[in-house]
Amino acid sequence: MPLTTKIQLITLLITSCILFYWFLFSTSQSHITDQCNQYRYSFTNLNRPTRKEDAHVLILTPFKQSAHLVDTYFDNLLKLTYPHHLISLGFLVSDSTDGTFEKLQSRAQQTLPEWQRFNKITVLQKDYKYDLPTNEDRHKFEVQIQRRAIMAKSRNTLLSTTLSEEHDWVLWLDGDVIEYPATLLDELISLDKDVIAPNCWWHSYNEKGGYDKNNWQETNESIEFQKTIPHDQVLVEGYEAVLNTHRKLMIDMVNEGGNTDMYYTIPLDAVGGTCTFVRAQVHRDGAIFPPFAYQHQVETEGFAKIAKSLGYSIWGLPNYFVYHYI
Amino acid sequence: MPLTTKIQLITLLITSCILFYWFLFSTSQSHITDQCNQYRYSFTNLNRPTRKEDAHVLILTPFKQSAHLVDTYFDNLLKLTYPHHLISLGFLVSDSTDGTFEKLQSRAQQTLPEWQRFNKITVLQKDYKYDLPTNEDRHKFEVQIQRRAIMAKSRNTLLSTTLSEEHDWVLWLDGDVIEYPATLLDELISLDKDVIAPNCWWHSYNEKGGYDKNNWQETNESIEFQKTIPHDQVLVEGYEAVLNTHRKLMIDMVNEGGNTDMYYTIPLDAVGGTCTFVRAQVHRDGAIFPPFAYQHQVETEGFAKIAKSLGYSIWGLPNYFVYHYI
Repeated sequence: MPLTTKIQLITLLITSCILFYWFLFSTSQSHITDQCNQYRYSFTNLNRPTRKEDAHVLILTPFKQSAHLVDTYFDNLLKLTYPHHLISLGFLVSDSTDGTFEKLQSRAQQTLPEWQRFNKITVLQKDYKYDLPTNEDRHKFEVQIQRRAIMAKSRNTLLSTTLSEEHDWVLWLDGDVIEYPATLLDELISLDKDVIAPNCWWHSYNEKGGYDKNNWQETNESIEFQKTIPHDQVLVEGYEAVLNTHRKLMIDMVNEGGNTDMYYTIPLDAVGGTCTFVRAQVHRDGAIFPPFAYQHQVETEGFAKIAKSLGYSIWGLPNYFVYHYI
Repeated sequence: MPLTTKIQLITLLITSCILFYWFLFSTSQSHITDQCNQYRYSFTNLNRPTRKEDAHVLILTPFKQSAHLVDTYFDNLLKLTYPHHLISLGFLVSDSTDGTFEKLQSRAQQTLPEWQRFNKITVLQKDYKYDLPTNEDRHKFEVQIQRRAIMAKSRNTLLSTTLSEEHDWVLWLDGDVIEYPATLLDELISLDKDVIAPNCWWHSYNEKGGYDKNNWQETNESIEFQKTIPHDQVLVEGYEAVLNTHRKLMIDMVNEGGNTDMYYTIPLDAVGGTCTFVRAQVHRDGAIFPPFAYQHQVETEGFAKIAKSLGYSIWGLPNYFVYHYI
């Protein structure tokens, strides 16, 4: 073999090698460009009914000065049996000086095996510079209404920023709800209601009691009572000494009428925010958390009142428990 | 040179080549993985004031049976002098059988030079199966209120699905607004108001007139009048024969009081949706488009009433014109 032939052979080999890798490389590049393009354009038909298979859930949690709750919160989430790639998480941290944001940031970036990873995690910071004036006990009732209006704004900010076309359901889960079944999402999805809330209680090693008083039904007395007050007066539960609203609370309805089934559902007129599961379209239509009086309610109860006005139905699970930090 | 040396040389060359490209390829791959990760985690401080530089604008437009308007709409958008990479677009197409969705889809995917490309385009479909019953003229006023409630839901769906943490401003721009200055966004951003609306008129070759009657101020008479009606009665403008609301419309306030400056601003109590510019945080707080009566208003006027209740101020530009299709 003469030297020139050998040189030609080497040149040919090198060129083939370059061409082959150039081809590989450019294919991978265009594949990447395609991946990026899927974020630049998005076409979605929202007429689709809520998906039965592969429904995508957005879990939303407002946090305030709660660094100590973040680990328990994430440990519980990681146990959820619902496929994690169909779950996105959204957090709004407000008025916190205890490192809640940094703690959430580090848990969000935690290295996890593929099957445990959530679809997307969004952490927002938004302060409302509002502290409950603890000394003004005699204004407690009014202070509660102001506090609820701030909470409404923070829930609205979290919802409007994180909800996107891919979501079928939104789970509102308070950071201090520390115990719930790992099958929570599978069960709430299969119940297929517009809005549904489990019963939020607290428990210690030997005692338990109702926690979320905002899951309730109107009664004949409560409806009559509302006719006697100004249309923009705000009502809240848990201040019986100041104001008896005559509502029937779900915390008092466990096993009522001999119905002991865990999935037994009752119609509600208002919900709290400790653990409430909402069909995404209910929020999309405009059922947000009013920071203003709507049918005598603000925040989560106001949300339920708006949802009902828009034709949606609200349900409670009196025998299905989730537990709040005490 | 013995043959074995030559073989060694060739092997060495090929190996180097493989190693070099493997390195190039893997670097590009990890770069891509980084790009994808930026979508999986997002940390945002919403306490930041609205950005003066690099503010990101979301332009939202509901479309219904409007395929014929899509080209003009996009041609106008492409002329905007504000940097296009700081603009995202969101469309909601409802109850359309004329190919509006397909037309929007094709314009969204149009190949454009880098500097003309928008940041992100989202096109949603959501039908409300609602047709104005044209024969029932005697119910025209009631029908208008029903229609506005549907419009409110469609605006809320569009807003809640597309608004994200990156946006500083939202421009509501109706698909049939066919003429406006290319400097619209630069000018509205520099005015730095919570909510601000230019004056929407129509014009032909020799005539012009006011179009958007929903930009208005309350008057002493309108406030007194509202005390005489049920708190949940909905008012709409443009039905003087049925109902005189006593509002002062911005379409009637051009050059009023000798103020001829194009950027002259006046306080408003309600806005329409033809062309309205909103600080994103106003929407995030919960100022959506009520499909229910709020202070006697629904949809865009209701949005303004909620925004005012939340402490935001509403402004109009009586001498700054945008033109509606006639």
